[in-house]
Amino acid sequence: MAFVNEDNITDLAIKRWSTARSPRVAELMTALVRHIHDYAREVELTSDEWMAAIEWLTTTGQISNDKRQEFILASDVVGLSMLVVQMNNRFAQEATPATVLGPFHIDGSPPAAFGFDMSEGIVGTPLFITGKVTDTTGTPIPGAVLDVWQADASGTYEAQMPEIDEARLRAKYQAREDGTYCVRTIAPLGYTIPMDGPVGTLIERTEISEYRPAHVHFMFDEPGYKKLITHLFQKDTDYLDSDVVFGVKDALIVPFTEHAPGQAPDGRVVEEPFLVAHFDFALQPEN
Amino acid sequence: MAFVNEDNITDLAIKRWSTARSPRVAELMTALVRHIHDYAREVELTSDEWMAAIEWLTTTGQISNDKRQEFILASDVVGLSMLVVQMNNRFAQEATPATVLGPFHIDGSPPAAFGFDMSEGIVGTPLFITGKVTDTTGTPIPGAVLDVWQADASGTYEAQMPEIDEARLRAKYQAREDGTYCVRTIAPLGYTIPMDGPVGTLIERTEISEYRPAHVHFMFDEPGYKKLITHLFQKDTDYLDSDVVFGVKDALIVPFTEHAPGQAPDGRVVEEPFLVAHFDFALQPEN
Repeated sequence: MAFVNEDNITDLAIKRWSTARSPRVAELMTALVRHIHDYAREVELTSDEWMAAIEWLTTTGQISNDKRQEFILASDVVGLSMLVVQMNNRFAQEATPATVLGPFHIDGSPPAAFGFDMSEGIVGTPLFITGKVTDTTGTPIPGAVLDVWQADASGTYEAQMPEIDEARLRAKYQAREDGTYCVRTIAPLGYTIPMDGPVGTLIERTEISEYRPAHVHFMFDEPGYKKLITHLFQKDTDYLDSDVVFGVKDALIVPFTEHAPGQAPDGRVVEEPFLVAHFDFALQPEN
Repeated sequence: MAFVNEDNITDLAIKRWSTARSPRVAELMTALVRHIHDYAREVELTSDEWMAAIEWLTTTGQISNDKRQEFILASDVVGLSMLVVQMNNRFAQEATPATVLGPFHIDGSPPAAFGFDMSEGIVGTPLFITGKVTDTTGTPIPGAVLDVWQADASGTYEAQMPEIDEARLRAKYQAREDGTYCVRTIAPLGYTIPMDGPVGTLIERTEISEYRPAHVHFMFDEPGYKKLITHLFQKDTDYLDSDVVFGVKDALIVPFTEHAPGQAPDGRVVEEPFLVAHFDFALQPEN
């Protein structure tokens, strides 16, 4: 009968967790045990550090609620979220790449037609995002739905505003028969992740920038195509090369071109300066 | 400017966390990032599994409170707690080895003299634990303090009983001038860890036994000696070779000898059958 010692404990723990009845759970748990033990041995984790980690994890769970998910934020800032996104979305070169979902998506946004203004009544520089939704050969996908959401000019999402009870800066745009779409919104701004929790406390001990560059979120879930969750980033905006959640990809950066007052891409006349971004989304077919 | 891809994200994340101003925090965080990424790559973590992990961590934080620490339990059942105990308590062969603290220690137990009954009024088989507290050469440590705690015959600790407002099955025994001590208590029973939380949910997916073998906790904090946190386990009791927290060491197993009614080790007469355990604790000198 082998009792525990510093040399055998990892093997004993792996053996024990290999008894999971699901082979996948056994694989996940035994690899987890091995990596956790390897980590503790490699850094010679002290008892005080172990206790600090226990307390950090507990606080991270306890600060999370319906509007805030601090563990997702933790996963984001160590690059795990983006690694998982990439491993699970290995698209062809021609397809629009995926990036992080983030914690602020709200299901059930209202349907919107070409040119609908999802920013009505909200302060900001008018922005038109136009282009086409196609497959990876450039063939349009008629009537494709673009689920769009973004922060306002103070960097705040509807999901962070408990008092809001109608859709704010989010809508499900339907592309036209030729695949073209037009989103009328306001220019997003870069913003900081929440810094008042345990993730912020860790980041404050480093030189890491806590900002995300200005972006608009898009989600596509068309039959016959892989689900696509992505952003568009404004070209030349701040923090592109230091996005705290590692979400920026070259293919997702798009110029926001300045226009003088006049006719907008959807034909209407805009009486103040506005921005236009052009982007064609290419969805990856399901095999 | 290198934007993120599946190949470079680990290096980018490590580089970022290496900016921690404390070299030790930089070491801990960069190694953590590397192991988390290696784990995710090795098991090809899916998006659903990632989300299940986020939810598991959140629930584990939220079920924890003053009386219950589910993250410590999680650390215990994957063998991390015991690995950290052993790495941080590399004592000489002659010293009594350490084992896990567990979540049920209460500070400030009342002082107790040789033979004090810390189980007064509590149902159970009388147990006397006697022996000596010495250094690693066998020289007694006069007046050494043994901070002792245990579960009752239903496997419950005072720390789990919010209604209790005086010390229950815990005391700080002082050894006599010759290092000898005598604890009068009741025989502990093996018990199950809490199975109604996220740790229990995981264990239920395996063949892992959720029990701990019968034991009594001891803590020593003598000037000039390394702090010692340990247990004594009853010889031949159930679950010795399957302790769910990996806490059993051969050197900590002690026979509980049955005695007919009569004179106990502290000289008193006991009118029912009782048990006697003999154990000499040897403390590791500082340096």
